Amino acid sequence: MPAFSRLVRFLAKDGRTYYGDAILPQGVSDLAKTTQARVIKGDIFGKHDVTDQVADVRLLLAPLAREDVKTVRCLGLNYEQHAKETGMPLPKYPVLFYKPVTSLGGPFDNVPVPAMAQEVEGLDYECELVAVIGKEAREVPESKALEYVLGYAVGDDISHREWQLKRGGGQWALGKGFDGWAPYGPGIVSSSLIKDPNNLRISTKVNGKTLQDNSTKDMIFGVAKTISFLSQGTTLLPGDLIFTGTPQGVAAARKPPTWLKDGDIVEVALEGVGTCINKVEHIKSRPKL
Amino acid sequence: MPAFSRLVRFLAKDGRTYYGDAILPQGVSDLAKTTQARVIKGDIFGKHDVTDQVADVRLLLAPLAREDVKTVRCLGLNYEQHAKETGMPLPKYPVLFYKPVTSLGGPFDNVPVPAMAQEVEGLDYECELVAVIGKEAREVPESKALEYVLGYAVGDDISHREWQLKRGGGQWALGKGFDGWAPYGPGIVSSSLIKDPNNLRISTKVNGKTLQDNSTKDMIFGVAKTISFLSQGTTLLPGDLIFTGTPQGVAAARKPPTWLKDGDIVEVALEGVGTCINKVEHIKSRPKL
Repeated sequence: MPAFSRLVRFLAKDGRTYYGDAILPQGVSDLAKTTQARVIKGDIFGKHDVTDQVADVRLLLAPLAREDVKTVRCLGLNYEQHAKETGMPLPKYPVLFYKPVTSLGGPFDNVPVPAMAQEVEGLDYECELVAVIGKEAREVPESKALEYVLGYAVGDDISHREWQLKRGGGQWALGKGFDGWAPYGPGIVSSSLIKDPNNLRISTKVNGKTLQDNSTKDMIFGVAKTISFLSQGTTLLPGDLIFTGTPQGVAAARKPPTWLKDGDIVEVALEGVGTCINKVEHIKSRPKL
Repeated sequence: MPAFSRLVRFLAKDGRTYYGDAILPQGVSDLAKTTQARVIKGDIFGKHDVTDQVADVRLLLAPLAREDVKTVRCLGLNYEQHAKETGMPLPKYPVLFYKPVTSLGGPFDNVPVPAMAQEVEGLDYECELVAVIGKEAREVPESKALEYVLGYAVGDDISHREWQLKRGGGQWALGKGFDGWAPYGPGIVSSSLIKDPNNLRISTKVNGKTLQDNSTKDMIFGVAKTISFLSQGTTLLPGDLIFTGTPQGVAAARKPPTWLKDGDIVEVALEGVGTCINKVEHIKSRPKL
């Protein structure tokens, strides 16, 4: 069991980067508002201690260092009402795709839109519950699957529908995998605090306007079933992330579509965890990682 | 430029694991036959030296340690005659999907077939040229793309057609991503020795019978164009692997299909590099990594 309740990774006012256990002011539950944290020493996935050292947060970073994440798995069409709005058939098995680790971003990072994704409209948001694997999982039964979860974050599975659906030969990977297109955060709330991940409100706002607002109850394959399924024949490693799909209300399903534009502010939020706030940024060429 | 010509990673007779520069006997070009290598010290992707220490090879391992590989990219339908045999349209852009790092295996490792892939027929082979990225690549023009290649290996993009094509909701990831389903090796031949990766013979034998035999000339998107394309908006990292697609002759396109069975020996070979030889092994449950 991890020693922390709410894991954050942050640039501190002393100029150093730490893992910490967030100290939330009375009445605040959004980890994005973390201003102080108790510094964690040791291995987040193994032996570690929450120390008495309190650090002041300058900027929250992606909750895991990139080298601590081996694989980013994502599900498609995993909310019933979303699957229906796409017009695609309801899946019989979880629909899996991957993002590269370079797609990860932090809770306040910009989402860089490269030239090839600016050529044509189609930029979309997808608020998702992100389950973080805490220990190696292999052939895990559904009844024990949540024991393998370190905690939960919220993420945005940024997608370019033209590249995802029309120019990718049917494979979604290209149009969802650009640098920084999987921002997540603002921290990871321990599974000791979130006993039931399938009863949480999840939502997206674009420039302050709510465009997705649902409950993780609407998932077709709940978190436990998903982890059990994905661990059949495949080893899930500590630090692996699972983006568990998005509810209805994506830009592509609206008439007219509410495609994201340069400068738009996208906020994805998950009850009990907080908000991940990212600005869409059209870039000329080389994105920064 | 790397200091080595033919990178191998191996368990030595002294019981230790090394990176080495293969010493091939006169007249031998298949790295699978490496019995000795000069030990390499340092960072394969940075400063390193080929030392005078000669080690005896007991077993060749996957050419890169798993922690040295960040992302495994694969192309589908990238050989013209293979694209035609599948009955799918020729791609306008490279068709990208990912495998997790847990799918990697060594040149003599068994391919473990988990229970869910034994339920129904459909296990297939795909010999592929594997390009290994040597340095960070971002928005790279085609004319310079090969400068980012450390070298080339041969790999087998093991695929279960039922899970890939029918039960995956159209996404290929699940049916291609099981533990050990991307064996590659036997080593990495430096791009200083292979100037033109698109003029090499590539083949598959199953139990000694040739089922794929073609040239990498038949690629629709050659290696340079592929790397350039994949680096648009996406950072390729040192150690990233790109499986560049397979030629015609896969089991699925044969009448009747030549599905792989428990115990089959699959050899994929690439001219100038060598042979990767893997036995299909139906397993009860937990595969070993």
